[in-house]
Amino acid sequence: MVVHSATLELDERVRARRAAGHHVVHLGFGEAGLPVLPEVREVLAGATGLNSYGPVVGSAEARGSAAGYFARRGLPTEPEQVIYGPGSKALLFALLSVLGGDIVLPRPSWVSYAAQAGLTGRGVIGAPISEVAGGVPEPNGLERVLEGARADGRKPAAMILTLPDNPTGTLAPAEQLEAICDIAQRYELLLICDEIYRDLVYHPERFRSPATIAPERTVVTSGLSKAMALGGWRIGLARLPDGRWGTSLRTELVGVAGEIWSSLAAPMQEVAGYVYSEPEEVVAYVSRGRRLHEAVSTAVHRVLVSAGARCRPPQAAFYLYPDLAPLRGRLAGTRVTGGTGLAELLLERHGVGVLAGTMFGDDPGALRLRVATSLLYGDTEEQRWRSLHSENPTTLPWIADALDRLRRALAELGKR
Amino acid sequence: MVVHSATLELDERVRARRAAGHHVVHLGFGEAGLPVLPEVREVLAGATGLNSYGPVVGSAEARGSAAGYFARRGLPTEPEQVIYGPGSKALLFALLSVLGGDIVLPRPSWVSYAAQAGLTGRGVIGAPISEVAGGVPEPNGLERVLEGARADGRKPAAMILTLPDNPTGTLAPAEQLEAICDIAQRYELLLICDEIYRDLVYHPERFRSPATIAPERTVVTSGLSKAMALGGWRIGLARLPDGRWGTSLRTELVGVAGEIWSSLAAPMQEVAGYVYSEPEEVVAYVSRGRRLHEAVSTAVHRVLVSAGARCRPPQAAFYLYPDLAPLRGRLAGTRVTGGTGLAELLLERHGVGVLAGTMFGDDPGALRLRVATSLLYGDTEEQRWRSLHSENPTTLPWIADALDRLRRALAELGKR
Repeated sequence: MVVHSATLELDERVRARRAAGHHVVHLGFGEAGLPVLPEVREVLAGATGLNSYGPVVGSAEARGSAAGYFARRGLPTEPEQVIYGPGSKALLFALLSVLGGDIVLPRPSWVSYAAQAGLTGRGVIGAPISEVAGGVPEPNGLERVLEGARADGRKPAAMILTLPDNPTGTLAPAEQLEAICDIAQRYELLLICDEIYRDLVYHPERFRSPATIAPERTVVTSGLSKAMALGGWRIGLARLPDGRWGTSLRTELVGVAGEIWSSLAAPMQEVAGYVYSEPEEVVAYVSRGRRLHEAVSTAVHRVLVSAGARCRPPQAAFYLYPDLAPLRGRLAGTRVTGGTGLAELLLERHGVGVLAGTMFGDDPGALRLRVATSLLYGDTEEQRWRSLHSENPTTLPWIADALDRLRRALAELGKR
Repeated sequence: MVVHSATLELDERVRARRAAGHHVVHLGFGEAGLPVLPEVREVLAGATGLNSYGPVVGSAEARGSAAGYFARRGLPTEPEQVIYGPGSKALLFALLSVLGGDIVLPRPSWVSYAAQAGLTGRGVIGAPISEVAGGVPEPNGLERVLEGARADGRKPAAMILTLPDNPTGTLAPAEQLEAICDIAQRYELLLICDEIYRDLVYHPERFRSPATIAPERTVVTSGLSKAMALGGWRIGLARLPDGRWGTSLRTELVGVAGEIWSSLAAPMQEVAGYVYSEPEEVVAYVSRGRRLHEAVSTAVHRVLVSAGARCRPPQAAFYLYPDLAPLRGRLAGTRVTGGTGLAELLLERHGVGVLAGTMFGDDPGALRLRVATSLLYGDTEEQRWRSLHSENPTTLPWIADALDRLRRALAELGKR
């Protein structure tokens, strides 16, 4: 069965509505919303002579640079542990396609995990997140789910974690992560940790990777789409565990990668090599982006909570996952019974584009939504640069206006 | 089961042997061996500000440009029929993953078809090529194979054709193609026609696409890796049939593409839009490349035939598929019993890198090899430009030297 990427589909739909003259506050797509760093543009412009296929895993230079990036984060890494691909999504797909058994997913979690599991013929075992944070199942609930799955004859083989998390914009605390790693060890699960938002944690010192707790069984995926705002350049990587499991995964991944995409485009490998060496302009850009995301995400959180929604405070990236259950009474006059209907109503009647939590594996009856805040930074490159360099981005007219429109939309929700 | 891409693997092995100081005539990899056209470099350098994900299928501009490219070749095409991806290989993979049933492949055919069929869980039904040309099964043999497959309860659903062909460097004649399209119609097969070498047919007027004969059931795949020598940029596309079958395939392909690679990198879409508009410098570059490929391929063919091999004369691109059966007696003192052993012997003892026909699905006992001639154009960018602009490329020292080495290697084959 083929499931369309819900995020990409909504993005295309919002663009079409805007092209037709409608005003839409676009909170539905996880694009970082920032212009390309000029030095990055220069690196790509200087790499236009590179047209060889090169190694499937990527050049030694680009892999060495990524190894340094991980080492500076407390994860000693050999270049041989790194494999590049056209987006971390492609590497996740390849990983799932070489695994046997079922995949354990936090519920809710990013739309593409379950869709990819479906495409690769893997079953999905959902395990609820905690009240504190998403991206990681609540440990007690996870054990019950695993026991139940085994009793049903299912074979949990791997678990995907998202640190920090999309859709909730939160970071699982260290003690919860330790409990999860302990369970992974007891149930012999491979851990696939999607760390694509890692450098966008508002308090970076709180970040801990399962690769430091369970190094022999953790694959980390990442890429330049978020912190570097290069979504449209499709630059991703996987860091494989050191040791036997990592070596055999590498062989299988190289086989699949070679048959699907051959290699990451050579000029893009140059970009990766440059960015992962972390020159100061890259560090400064990521840091400014992080501050902007925090300011706007926190402001949107305030609007949501003021309107009566329940919502975990954001800790990373540009996502919020509000629950509008407290507003359910106001929806009595509508035909809304769950998240999908609510998202439709917000788009069609109130000009607000968000995704239903249902898309992320959540209960269809829940009124939970995934709100992405990064497309508020402006419609022009100039606005986006000003957002990035502003000390008070939420006072910029285009951001303030979007916050107002959201506030009004929520105030009017359910009224005829 | 995961099979490594044999072509990519040999390329990496030859590079490693060279790095270790060995001289290797590299005839083992289908990289076009030419530098990037300066105007193409400028387009990429001018596209470094584009960082949005954009539509899964690619931008309207890039698709419109490809539609024009096909229209100029007698295939009226709407932009909606075009979908881009990171290489035509990725699109082939996505196509196979949305089809049910078994895949019919010419035997021999390009290494990745069978490997991708394996990855997507499709069975392979091999049908031998004719003495005249590869890329298309011999029609009578095909009918027998299809009848046998059906009798065995198998479900042939699609057939992949390669026009012109890799590994044989030939172009199936029109009457053979018509017979094949007739069979496809009677057996209700989808035709997937890999036309990535189309613009490298030495006599372009002889080319005919099954999309003009059986338009409702033919998907064409192509890309910029060969005629534009942009293998390392990973720019591919598929042209879907107009009509109901095409529309449903598009929906499914968009679903798979969105979950694996999201979209072709935005700056690369700009390159595609430019190239497929076919400005005169692009046409001139492709035409010069075609002439160079013809000159060198024809010269290598002469060396092979002079050494006693049987080989179809090249008609396109930069491949030859010699049969060294006439030389089998000379291999008596070696342990060579088939293509794989012969390719090993040539690499290890004679410094010639080629692939065994076995890799392409051929009989393991046959002494057939896939010879790629495009890496002879030089080791430096300057040499490659000189090859491209030479009136007599085979007299250039680096090409003449490689031809000599190949001649000597074949003369010494089997001697101790």
